Amino acid sequence: MAALTGFTQAVFEQLDVPPADAAVAAAVLLHADVRGIDSHGVARIDWYADLIRTGKVRIQPDWRVVRETPATATVDGGGGLGMVVGQRAMALAIAKARAVGGGLVTVTNSWHYGIAGYYAERALAHDMIGLSMTNASPLATPTFGREPRLGTNPLAVAIPAGEELPFLLDMATTVVAGGKLALAIREGKPIPAGWALDQAGRPTTDARVGLASRNLLPLGSVPERSSYKGYGLAVVVDVLCGVLSGMGHSPRLGWLQAGHFFGALRVDAFRPLAEFAGGMDALIRDLHATPPAPGYDRVLVAGEREWLAEQDRQAKGIPLFPSVVTMLAGLGAELGVPFPARA
Amino acid sequence: MAALTGFTQAVFEQLDVPPADAAVAAAVLLHADVRGIDSHGVARIDWYADLIRTGKVRIQPDWRVVRETPATATVDGGGGLGMVVGQRAMALAIAKARAVGGGLVTVTNSWHYGIAGYYAERALAHDMIGLSMTNASPLATPTFGREPRLGTNPLAVAIPAGEELPFLLDMATTVVAGGKLALAIREGKPIPAGWALDQAGRPTTDARVGLASRNLLPLGSVPERSSYKGYGLAVVVDVLCGVLSGMGHSPRLGWLQAGHFFGALRVDAFRPLAEFAGGMDALIRDLHATPPAPGYDRVLVAGEREWLAEQDRQAKGIPLFPSVVTMLAGLGAELGVPFPARA
Repeated sequence: MAALTGFTQAVFEQLDVPPADAAVAAAVLLHADVRGIDSHGVARIDWYADLIRTGKVRIQPDWRVVRETPATATVDGGGGLGMVVGQRAMALAIAKARAVGGGLVTVTNSWHYGIAGYYAERALAHDMIGLSMTNASPLATPTFGREPRLGTNPLAVAIPAGEELPFLLDMATTVVAGGKLALAIREGKPIPAGWALDQAGRPTTDARVGLASRNLLPLGSVPERSSYKGYGLAVVVDVLCGVLSGMGHSPRLGWLQAGHFFGALRVDAFRPLAEFAGGMDALIRDLHATPPAPGYDRVLVAGEREWLAEQDRQAKGIPLFPSVVTMLAGLGAELGVPFPARA
Repeated sequence: MAALTGFTQAVFEQLDVPPADAAVAAAVLLHADVRGIDSHGVARIDWYADLIRTGKVRIQPDWRVVRETPATATVDGGGGLGMVVGQRAMALAIAKARAVGGGLVTVTNSWHYGIAGYYAERALAHDMIGLSMTNASPLATPTFGREPRLGTNPLAVAIPAGEELPFLLDMATTVVAGGKLALAIREGKPIPAGWALDQAGRPTTDARVGLASRNLLPLGSVPERSSYKGYGLAVVVDVLCGVLSGMGHSPRLGWLQAGHFFGALRVDAFRPLAEFAGGMDALIRDLHATPPAPGYDRVLVAGEREWLAEQDRQAKGIPLFPSVVTMLAGLGAELGVPFPARA
């Protein structure tokens, strides 16, 4: 894992990203891999490399706070790497929460920032609740629609606990993110009904058709199961990231362009930390104690699966698809960074 | 409508609620009716009357801010009516947002507060984005579970626009709220698959069975359609309303007990108001311009249906079920408040 992190950082450095920023970008990508979210890890480094080599992403962005109050800020990311802009903007939200209890930061002029959960998780070490969201170019259709108008617009919430693992919800506001369709294509499998529509607005179980139409369905899937809720949440994310920041809402964004929104709440501004931690443990234990429905083993809490993957991968290393290894080795060869024999 | 408002206020006054608080409680309930959310309006006044008459709700609550920072507060509602406590706590969030850009308020020691959207909407007149959520006693089961552990834990977000109608998302984090099952029972109809489980954790289309088991399903409905997302959102609501406030999470709550969470963001803390309003209008128009899928007329934006209901009911009055009229007239007779001939 250390070798893969070093490789990733070196690739960014060879693309003239300053070392401190390259380290941040590598940390965000590797965090996705170590938590088992392979679709958002080093497998996407070619996206970022392309953005840098075509001059779209600025490697030395002019990061500016354009508006500010004690609890809020609007940040212009200067067109930098989303991971670098995101890390700094989340740190600003945390600093504001330390000062006045809560911090809320919207970000314009940024790019794809990797997994939403990474930034929300930054709050945990500060005994804060963290919030992170991003908009993106259209890949989802509103309820009753048949053309893409919204990104998969994910949101993430991280909440510290006591003895139990922290709670971490990291979710696209669509039924599934695009990566699940890409995986189905790779595996040659159909997708379940209720994930996507074809170009004419009819349900499809063909992942290629669903990705080509860019008509992923909002969480809830169909009107009878209240898909207006997933659709509404996607709009909220679009407003906080795109309209409030001035970046623009999803249909106005080019491929991989993004606005973000970050929040931090200092737990002890509301309640003594030990009491809160005890309350979280009690909640998590009550959820774990739910008897399972037929066909299931046990009830999980958000983030648990990812923490288990993290333990496993920290110990055993990160498994990479052969196609990803080929891409990484090729990119390394181009840039003079040898791909490590063991990730 | 004015007559029904006056009647409702008079009922609360006859129950010894101070006139100003009775006016607030009546305004919240009537707002649900006028917006077409009949399940949360005057039809529930008997719930509140029972809570007052049994001494559970305090009619002159000792409302206290127990912890405070410039951007945050924890409020003890003193066991008052949820509508009265909620209105004051939301006003505090708005005052904090005016002062420092954003306000975040958690509330303990309160009761059922009616529709979540009412409080979020209070922000609109102040050119702010409003947030409101509440937890509740268990009526929903976690993903993979078969026993109730979470309330329907609704959340509401209100966002001002320019020439377009404001955006208002007001949603239970379950596929549907309990009221939809109650309606199906009244109409003698089956419910769609994916709304609820029976007591053994098997899918049911019988509304009576679903309500009796209290196993409503989280938004997403089934694991294959990412119900962990609705489940996770319900937990977030439970934490912000129940754990952060000290009220307790859903399984620890008695019938109609609740903690709440309110938020307000001052738009011009982030971006000039006119620019934001223009951006909202552009977003809403892009959504409206989505071509409809086969079988649907047009794409709506959250809150639109309710604004249309409001226009209609402001003009024509509020239709009441005969059983609701009987309950209201009976309660009025007991308390010496004549039920108006025309609502």
